[in-house]
Amino acid sequence: MKEKEQDKRIFLSHGSGGKLMHDLIRDLFRKKFANKILDQLSDSAFIPEIIPEHNRLCFTTDSYVVNPLFFPGGDIGKLAVCGTINDLCMVGATPLYLSCGFILEEGLELDILEKITDSMAASAKEAHVSIVTGDVKVVEKNKADNVFINTSGIGLRKNSLKLGKEYIEPGDQILINGYIGDHGTAVISARKDFRLETDIQSDCAALTDLTRKILNKGNHIKFMRDPTRGGMATTLNEIAFDTGFGVQIREEDIPVREETRAACEILGLDPLYLANEGKLVIIVGKKEAQGILKLMQSHALGKESRIIGEIVSEPERKVIMKTPMGASRILDMLIGEQMPRIC
Amino acid sequence: MKEKEQDKRIFLSHGSGGKLMHDLIRDLFRKKFANKILDQLSDSAFIPEIIPEHNRLCFTTDSYVVNPLFFPGGDIGKLAVCGTINDLCMVGATPLYLSCGFILEEGLELDILEKITDSMAASAKEAHVSIVTGDVKVVEKNKADNVFINTSGIGLRKNSLKLGKEYIEPGDQILINGYIGDHGTAVISARKDFRLETDIQSDCAALTDLTRKILNKGNHIKFMRDPTRGGMATTLNEIAFDTGFGVQIREEDIPVREETRAACEILGLDPLYLANEGKLVIIVGKKEAQGILKLMQSHALGKESRIIGEIVSEPERKVIMKTPMGASRILDMLIGEQMPRIC
Repeated sequence: MKEKEQDKRIFLSHGSGGKLMHDLIRDLFRKKFANKILDQLSDSAFIPEIIPEHNRLCFTTDSYVVNPLFFPGGDIGKLAVCGTINDLCMVGATPLYLSCGFILEEGLELDILEKITDSMAASAKEAHVSIVTGDVKVVEKNKADNVFINTSGIGLRKNSLKLGKEYIEPGDQILINGYIGDHGTAVISARKDFRLETDIQSDCAALTDLTRKILNKGNHIKFMRDPTRGGMATTLNEIAFDTGFGVQIREEDIPVREETRAACEILGLDPLYLANEGKLVIIVGKKEAQGILKLMQSHALGKESRIIGEIVSEPERKVIMKTPMGASRILDMLIGEQMPRIC
Repeated sequence: MKEKEQDKRIFLSHGSGGKLMHDLIRDLFRKKFANKILDQLSDSAFIPEIIPEHNRLCFTTDSYVVNPLFFPGGDIGKLAVCGTINDLCMVGATPLYLSCGFILEEGLELDILEKITDSMAASAKEAHVSIVTGDVKVVEKNKADNVFINTSGIGLRKNSLKLGKEYIEPGDQILINGYIGDHGTAVISARKDFRLETDIQSDCAALTDLTRKILNKGNHIKFMRDPTRGGMATTLNEIAFDTGFGVQIREEDIPVREETRAACEILGLDPLYLANEGKLVIIVGKKEAQGILKLMQSHALGKESRIIGEIVSEPERKVIMKTPMGASRILDMLIGEQMPRIC
């Protein structure tokens, strides 16, 4: 029996709790995310993990509304898995389990949803996490935009970890694991209304392995944060504001790809404020900085790592960027909107 | 300084990761959901709870897209908190912590968002759970519908609990804690296009206290499920399908309010398929059924509890409803869509 074209789309009934929803869960989500915990299909997933002594549970959530759904280097599914994994990594936790909540627009092609779930499954597998519980809702045409995904994540963190903004002090070095601005540029250049032809790929990646190696090196790292929405400038401002210290960075040491810089110039954007999805800013004591840098550079996700600046006692709560010519520029937190729906 | 009217709305910039987003998080979400874990404002929340021995972590997620946002007896905020709490209650877990992810439509009035967060905060407080981590995204006008909320929840469940569909056997009694169909009817009657004047209130409520009291009574309960989307008929079909047994219910014992029945007749809906948000179906051994019924009836959320039927060995995987006249009707799982966006 040949399926009709219209049968391969999402109907409102796919979200009604009835037969179509059960079929979708069985034929798509359970198949793609296959694991024993998800297969329980109970109202909540039972987590078999025993929390070891001296460990603490970490819990995070993010919704993903990126437009377009597919962009060079990734898609909304990969983003939804990696983004939430990275939020757990940033606090030093090992990501273990994810939930996923889909909000689908009526009329969405099932092929698109399948591609997205394939991508989620592959990213989860690569990062050794399981998607153990989920939900799907459908809204009428023009009441959403194809697909929105929420993922929440839980992970485990050793209590002995000395990681937190309270450990930051003047003299500490600031590191980044590579080129900034790639994700934002890749997403924007994929939008039809821009028709910008670049080869830039999103840096979207799970940082689990890199952060684990850094943390295993010993208790040298003081703080990590992924510069996503608002970009590196916003993350540095958060650090300055939260610690009360100043942040000083050197413009020439900030890794920005030539193509990214060129695309940003055409679009009137600043790479310092563009979202990254596979980057982390690390604060580390002065003595340990070179060792951590070398370790990062030896990792596939850190080849272009750099020390970009340091924590200073003043000016308090400000981020100052030194230009190659010796001038200083204050980097504010992002005020307006560079581009909506970047993640 | 008088604020301009347009300042009291959500802009795309509220989701950009920059200053407006930080202000919104500080002035609204942190204020309303105030607790020390949320105040950490790190990439993931640290859960202070120590998992006691012989306990297991439970994890669940749900997105809420109900239309309209406010309806008699509740709103999307109350629903988002109670719905996810109930998913934890149904597996016998004590709900502890929630995440919340907002997807906001550009132009949303801040007053509306504040009312919703007030309602979430009140519902969370009443149910003794904390909202410990969150996220906010903003999409362009007509790319969402005012507000969508995802909540994920974690809770603790005793390993000794003998609760699960594998314990169900023929002869077991089926109980419900009161009138069905109220939530669906209240939401639909609140839609402008229906202009249906009824006094029906949604039954939206957290079932924590009721389920705790039932579980404390001893290990008599075999299974619980909240008949939300797809209604009671769908929940009973899931039970029949998953156990391989039959389900037989008596039409005259199913509690339906007269007003709900009347409204459903006008709208051509069936209360058996309408969503409930404060109801649970309980399966219990024959000997214990009366005791559990009395306990339920003594609780504010169970006054109208009834024994509505039983598990039978055949017909397998079918739900049969006996009418007062002695006829039998097969209740299928909901096939189409009674009404979209009921939760």
